[in-house]
Amino acid sequence: MIVHMHGTAEMIFTGDELLRGDIVNSNQAFLGEALLRAGLFATHSLCVADSLDLIAHAVEEALARQPDVLLLSGGLGPTEDDLTREAVAQALGLELVHHEELLEQVAARFQTFNMSMPPSNLKQALLPHGAHALPFTGTAPGFWLAADDTIIAALPGVPRELHVMWDKELAPLLRQRLDTTTGVEVRRLRVAGMGEGTLAEALRGLSWKGGDVEIGTRAGAEGITLVLRCATGPEAHAHLDTAEHEVRRILGRKIFGTGNADMAEAVGHLLRAHGLTAATAESCSGGLIAKRFTDVAGSSDYFQGGVVSYSNQAKIDLLGVEEELLQRHGAVSPEVAAAMARGAAERLHADCAVSTTGIAGPGGGSEEKPVGLVYVATAVHGDVETARYLMFRTRQEIRTRTAQTALDLLRLRLLTLGTTT
Amino acid sequence: MIVHMHGTAEMIFTGDELLRGDIVNSNQAFLGEALLRAGLFATHSLCVADSLDLIAHAVEEALARQPDVLLLSGGLGPTEDDLTREAVAQALGLELVHHEELLEQVAARFQTFNMSMPPSNLKQALLPHGAHALPFTGTAPGFWLAADDTIIAALPGVPRELHVMWDKELAPLLRQRLDTTTGVEVRRLRVAGMGEGTLAEALRGLSWKGGDVEIGTRAGAEGITLVLRCATGPEAHAHLDTAEHEVRRILGRKIFGTGNADMAEAVGHLLRAHGLTAATAESCSGGLIAKRFTDVAGSSDYFQGGVVSYSNQAKIDLLGVEEELLQRHGAVSPEVAAAMARGAAERLHADCAVSTTGIAGPGGGSEEKPVGLVYVATAVHGDVETARYLMFRTRQEIRTRTAQTALDLLRLRLLTLGTTT
Repeated sequence: MIVHMHGTAEMIFTGDELLRGDIVNSNQAFLGEALLRAGLFATHSLCVADSLDLIAHAVEEALARQPDVLLLSGGLGPTEDDLTREAVAQALGLELVHHEELLEQVAARFQTFNMSMPPSNLKQALLPHGAHALPFTGTAPGFWLAADDTIIAALPGVPRELHVMWDKELAPLLRQRLDTTTGVEVRRLRVAGMGEGTLAEALRGLSWKGGDVEIGTRAGAEGITLVLRCATGPEAHAHLDTAEHEVRRILGRKIFGTGNADMAEAVGHLLRAHGLTAATAESCSGGLIAKRFTDVAGSSDYFQGGVVSYSNQAKIDLLGVEEELLQRHGAVSPEVAAAMARGAAERLHADCAVSTTGIAGPGGGSEEKPVGLVYVATAVHGDVETARYLMFRTRQEIRTRTAQTALDLLRLRLLTLGTTT
Repeated sequence: MIVHMHGTAEMIFTGDELLRGDIVNSNQAFLGEALLRAGLFATHSLCVADSLDLIAHAVEEALARQPDVLLLSGGLGPTEDDLTREAVAQALGLELVHHEELLEQVAARFQTFNMSMPPSNLKQALLPHGAHALPFTGTAPGFWLAADDTIIAALPGVPRELHVMWDKELAPLLRQRLDTTTGVEVRRLRVAGMGEGTLAEALRGLSWKGGDVEIGTRAGAEGITLVLRCATGPEAHAHLDTAEHEVRRILGRKIFGTGNADMAEAVGHLLRAHGLTAATAESCSGGLIAKRFTDVAGSSDYFQGGVVSYSNQAKIDLLGVEEELLQRHGAVSPEVAAAMARGAAERLHADCAVSTTGIAGPGGGSEEKPVGLVYVATAVHGDVETARYLMFRTRQEIRTRTAQTALDLLRLRLLTLGTTT
C-alpha cells in the first residue's frame, strides 16, 4: 500500500447494473487515478445495490473510517432507482431541501430539446440540507457537503458527465478545501519489445536509489507501462527526472513514449519528422495495423493506405507477390512477408511499409508452422528486413501483439534513420 | 433491485492497482453475472487496499450482513501484498494450516518451467483452518470454507485463472451446496440500426405481459443489447421464448444475433450459408471493417481481403476509382463510395463488398461536408447501394459506428437474398 500520501478517500458506486455485470465500472479507475493526483489514496471502493438502506448504511460505514473525501457516483437521475440524495440525507440525519434555481437549470435542459420536463425530474432539485450543488453538463446535478472532517461529493454515473464534473468542479474544490501539500506525481513510460520478466531483470541493475520514486509495471497486449510515482513537493520533478533518466539509460529505445502514448502515434511522429509516408500489407493482422495507423487523427498526412491480403490471390493481384514464391515457401514465410512489404510500398507509393503473415489460429496450424508463427517485414526506402516470432495465447492476443510488434519494428528502423541522416 | 432471487452474495477485491486506477476491475463484471446465473444477486462489491486489517475488517462487515456467498478475488500470490489467506483467517479467528499436498502442487508448477521454487511461495500452501483448496490452473491455489450460513471462497485475481476456477470448481460446488432452486435465466438479443430512444418507443407496443420477464437495455458503440431475465424454473424457458418471440415480432431483422453475437460473425454466417465471398474498401474506417471480419476465426473461408484507400491515389490505383469521379464529387461522396465497393469486389474477386468514405475528424470537416458525414456502399453481385449518415461524437466513435453500420447493411442485403433465392 502506498503510504506517503496526504489523505485517504473512499468511493461508493450505486447501480444494480454494475453488480449484475452488465457494465464494467470504468468510473472507479478514472476516479482512483484522479484522487491519487489530488493526493488522496482510495482505501475502499464499493459498488452497492440500488437500495436506500444499503446505500445509506454504506455511507455510514465509510464515514466511520473518517476518510478525507467520500465520493459517490450514480443515482442522481429522476427515476425511483436514483437514491443517492436520499441515502446521503438519511445517513447524516439531514432533511432534503428544494432548490428552485436547480429546478430551473434542469428544466432548461429539457427546453433545449423542446421538451417539457416530466414531474419525476422534480426530485433532482432536492439536496441534503447544507449541501451545495455542483454545476452539471448533462442532466444530473451533483452536490457536495462537509460532514465532520470528510468532504462528501455526489457525481453522476455517466462517465462523460462524471469526467467533466470532476475536472471542472470537484478537483479545484478539493485542491482549495483540502489545502493539499503532498499529492502524487505520476509519470508513465511505455515499453515495447520486452516481456515482464526481462524488464524486471533489466531494471534490477538500477544503480539509482532514493528520491522516494516508486516504480510499478502494468502489462498489456500492447506492451508494458512503467509507472513512476513520487510524492509531490518542490523536489518531485527532479526526483522523477532522475528516475526517468536512469530507466532510459537501461531501456533506451525500448521506451517508445510517455504518458498514454500510443505506438502508432509514435511511428506517426517519426514519419512526420522525416517527411516519409507509410503503407501496410496485412495477412494475419487483418487490417489491425491500418486501423492503428488511422486511429490517429491527422494520419492521412503520412499514411497512404494498405492492403488486407487474406487470400493468396489478393497477395498476387494487389501486392504483386509472385505466385511461384507462394508455392515454394507458402504464404507464411519470410520470403512472402518481404514481398508483401515491398509490394505495399510500391503499389501505394509509400516510402515505408510493414507487412504481416502468420497463423493467428485457432485453426490452420501444423507441426512445421504452428499457430502463433508470425513473420513481420519492414521496408524502408526499398530496403527490407524480416523477423520471425512465435506468439502465444488467443487469436486476438496474437493479432494484437503482431500489430504492436510490426509498428515497433518500423519505429526502430525510423530511429536508426534518424541518427545517420 | 432484482427481488425474485434465491440468495445474496458479496464480492471483495484486493489490490491497490484497482484503487489507483491502474486497471479496470473486469473481474467484478464477470463474477456479478456468474453469480446471477447461479441464483445469487450481489448486493455489495468492494475493492479494498492491500492491508491486512482493512481486508479482515471488510470480511467481517460483509459476514455481518449474512450473505449466502462471499467471494474474494486476488491476494493469493506469494508476495507480501498477498494477504487474503491471512485476512480471512484473522476475520474468522482461525489458524493458518500448512497443506503439504498444496505445496507439492505449487512446486510442480515451477518444475514445469525447470525453475526451483523460491521460499516466498511457501505461504501459498497455507489455508485457514477448515478451508478446502480449490484446484488451480495458474500459480495461485484458491480455497473455500463455510462460516455459519455463508460460503466464503477465495479466487485468484488473474482473470484467466479466475474464470477457470469459477467455471470448473466454484460454480459446481455452489450449485451443490446451495441447492439453488431459483436462479436467473438470461437471454440477450443484439439490436442494430436503432437508437435507444427509438428502441424504447418500439417496445412500448409490446402486447405481451407477465411471465416475470424483465427486459433491460445496454447500449454501446456496436449497438444495443436487450437483456431478458426470468427467474429459473420449469416455465422459465417458455416465458423467455414468449418474450423473445414478441420482441422479434416488433424488431424483426433489427435483431442480428443472440448472446454475445458479433455483427461480423453474423455477416460471416450469412456469407457461408450462401457460399459467397466478401471484400472491403475502407477510407474513413481505415481497416476496422477488415479487422472485424478477420477477428472471426475461420473468416479466411469467405473473406478475400480489403483495401484501405486512405489516399486518393490508392483509391485510383488499387480500386480503380476514376480520377474524374474524385475530382467531380470529392472523395467523400456517394459516387466514390459506390465506385470503391465495385472496385473492391472486382479486384478481390469477391461476390460482395462494403466500402466507407467519410470524415472521421476531428479535422477535415467543412460546412458542406462536416465531421461525421459518412457514405457507406454495399455491392452484392455487382448491384451497388449507397447510404448517407451523419454520425456524432469522437473520431473513434464515428469509426466504430461506421464499421458496425457497414457490416449491418451488408447483413440486411444478404438477408434479402435469402428470401428470394
